[in-house]
Amino acid sequence: MKATGIVVEYNPLHNGHVYHAQQARKVTGADVVIAVMSGNFLQRGEPAFVDKWTRTKMALASGVDIVFELPYRFATGNAPVFAQGAVGLLDAAGCSAFCFGSEDGDIAPFHNSLQLIDHHAADYDAAVKQAVAEGLSYPMALNKAYKSILTGQAAVPVADLSMPNNILGFHYMEAAHSIGSSMDAVTIKRMGAGYHDETLDNQKIASATGIRKSYFGSATLDEVSAFIPEATRILLLEWQSERTRFGNWESFYPFLRFVILRDGPSRLCDIADVSEGIENRIFRAAQSQPSFQSFMDEVKSKRYTWTRIQRMLTHILTGFTKIMRTTMEKPAYLRLLGMTNKGRSYLSYKKKEFPLPLISKVASFSDPSLDMDVTASDIYALTLGAGTGDSKTGLDYLHSPIMEDHFGSNAFK
Amino acid sequence: MKATGIVVEYNPLHNGHVYHAQQARKVTGADVVIAVMSGNFLQRGEPAFVDKWTRTKMALASGVDIVFELPYRFATGNAPVFAQGAVGLLDAAGCSAFCFGSEDGDIAPFHNSLQLIDHHAADYDAAVKQAVAEGLSYPMALNKAYKSILTGQAAVPVADLSMPNNILGFHYMEAAHSIGSSMDAVTIKRMGAGYHDETLDNQKIASATGIRKSYFGSATLDEVSAFIPEATRILLLEWQSERTRFGNWESFYPFLRFVILRDGPSRLCDIADVSEGIENRIFRAAQSQPSFQSFMDEVKSKRYTWTRIQRMLTHILTGFTKIMRTTMEKPAYLRLLGMTNKGRSYLSYKKKEFPLPLISKVASFSDPSLDMDVTASDIYALTLGAGTGDSKTGLDYLHSPIMEDHFGSNAFK
Repeated sequence: MKATGIVVEYNPLHNGHVYHAQQARKVTGADVVIAVMSGNFLQRGEPAFVDKWTRTKMALASGVDIVFELPYRFATGNAPVFAQGAVGLLDAAGCSAFCFGSEDGDIAPFHNSLQLIDHHAADYDAAVKQAVAEGLSYPMALNKAYKSILTGQAAVPVADLSMPNNILGFHYMEAAHSIGSSMDAVTIKRMGAGYHDETLDNQKIASATGIRKSYFGSATLDEVSAFIPEATRILLLEWQSERTRFGNWESFYPFLRFVILRDGPSRLCDIADVSEGIENRIFRAAQSQPSFQSFMDEVKSKRYTWTRIQRMLTHILTGFTKIMRTTMEKPAYLRLLGMTNKGRSYLSYKKKEFPLPLISKVASFSDPSLDMDVTASDIYALTLGAGTGDSKTGLDYLHSPIMEDHFGSNAFK
Repeated sequence: MKATGIVVEYNPLHNGHVYHAQQARKVTGADVVIAVMSGNFLQRGEPAFVDKWTRTKMALASGVDIVFELPYRFATGNAPVFAQGAVGLLDAAGCSAFCFGSEDGDIAPFHNSLQLIDHHAADYDAAVKQAVAEGLSYPMALNKAYKSILTGQAAVPVADLSMPNNILGFHYMEAAHSIGSSMDAVTIKRMGAGYHDETLDNQKIASATGIRKSYFGSATLDEVSAFIPEATRILLLEWQSERTRFGNWESFYPFLRFVILRDGPSRLCDIADVSEGIENRIFRAAQSQPSFQSFMDEVKSKRYTWTRIQRMLTHILTGFTKIMRTTMEKPAYLRLLGMTNKGRSYLSYKKKEFPLPLISKVASFSDPSLDMDVTASDIYALTLGAGTGDSKTGLDYLHSPIMEDHFGSNAFK
């Protein structure tokens, strides 16, 4: 059986994601599609719109056969860290290829870029360091260093590493290269990037960001239903009726603010990514600002990207320290969140070859990174549920992996 | 001008407290009554029913001339620590006497007890240690040690140190003795201790605990109005209309639970009073229990009094660590929360003699203990206000001391 891997967040899953999973299967001729998916906190440093189990159901209903959780430590890291975790897990899960969406949509330029950077590694690293020292954000420093080594090269086509999906795809390839993976890299052109609608096989495509913004504005589920599969619509409806609200920073802010004031600048310094005095800005803003928006307006500065600040805030909320991070340098397990029947066959057939343990029950395995995933789930549930009376904790212990036949046929309509 | 000191919590202020302040003035012939009052977290390890500014208004309307804040570090300590802070401040404020309510109501037995323990200090200390080692709670160990040194003594009358107010009064006298204070100790018989009503000058007396329980049950403000002065009733009504809820552990529990799960057992160990493995009990209970009541049912054991556990929880909520506590061994300032006109005259006349700085504006003084008071206020405001939209922080910086003529004449009716 042949497996192709994809890296996803599904926040929430929309028509563009269905297309990506379909194409990944088709282009690579795969029997199963394996997704490595972030848990309840995401790469941009945000709480997920709905939790990881709901998003796993969306995935299984939309062309994915197996969902593994990307551990918190990688899911909330910058692009290279995120890629290292995700690609490491896809490789460990026996995928023969991985497929990412990109603005370029052609794999050759990525290979050329990778080769070029590999050949000029010392110059590249020095240029990155210099750009960071000049005050550029890390993503901008990478792009500047990249451009500097392109200068004067023969005119082979190279990837445009100023585009967000190209950047992420490039980091996947770099991560695969660094672990000596035999997986083939495949890319498809990303549809519907940005906030503009496009038409594709009569399916409307909007970005997940656009869909969330509509929700937090005044749009109803019906108004965004053209952009999401029926299973997503039903799962979001169920979530809304049970939990009354979706995850975003504004609703998590009272807890974030509380813990910033409680810990104070000196303990905030222990938190991962918090450094260089920003703990004082964060503390002062929490003292005075009643909303997340006004808080961010006070914290942000030229020096830090919005995403970088949000990642710090995620770590503050979950109590993820610099020391904790050092205990989880590499992916150490394959945490199964769900599978279709076909996915189950694949796992039965392949799991003995996996270099990492396959975790179906959290209680059966002990690992600092897995503990952190459980903590992150509990904090998500408590924070989202505050005031609504629904704040179930310990779901990681209670939930078995989601099975295709475990949830109503409605979700597969 | 002659000042008499009292130690209060006013949670909330009721008719029994008015009687105490009146008697303190009368029995000692004082010109002014000075109260040292806990801030927003109290000696039994609980959030206050209403905040310290509202309780200061109650005090000034009910026979108290000056209110100083007992710093968090002492206000949430065990009886000896609480007494050390409170009596230290009354002494620093130039009181010539302090007056406490007790079950005994006669000062001679207290002096006898103090002398007896002083004469048998080594035996007493050894007996306390042994009783603690046998597994008794600290208050029970003190009582057992006390009884052991009474055995075989000449039959002078001694205080009954199994009664809660006698115990606290005894610790006040011990604290005054230990700092060599020249203050006279005075006691009056406590009226209306326990939950039973008593009639006194046509004023009904109920305990503050009873009044709070009525509120959190189904009683209305009108139903308890017989037990509280009119000023208290009006201030509670104002609080209720502005904040919608009163402080208690049940409403603070979502934040407590969140921070227990976030910090985990290893970081809970850094918190003041948390030791001997109870951090694991606390963590497990927070993982599973949705209400404060069910949480406490799971945490409590023979080894720990309810109050001792609640003090740990208060420190967990406010982030008060063992290390922080070592930086604030003695009262270092007199923080003025409010004063009547007569109180103001006293301070103008006396403040130059005070051995500690008099703080009217928090921003003008820097001290770790004062920082902790500010943090505790902010955490109280944020936690109480969550979900109600009213969670003003920084009140310690915004509030000037309450003046008699600063609040409506209504409160003095």
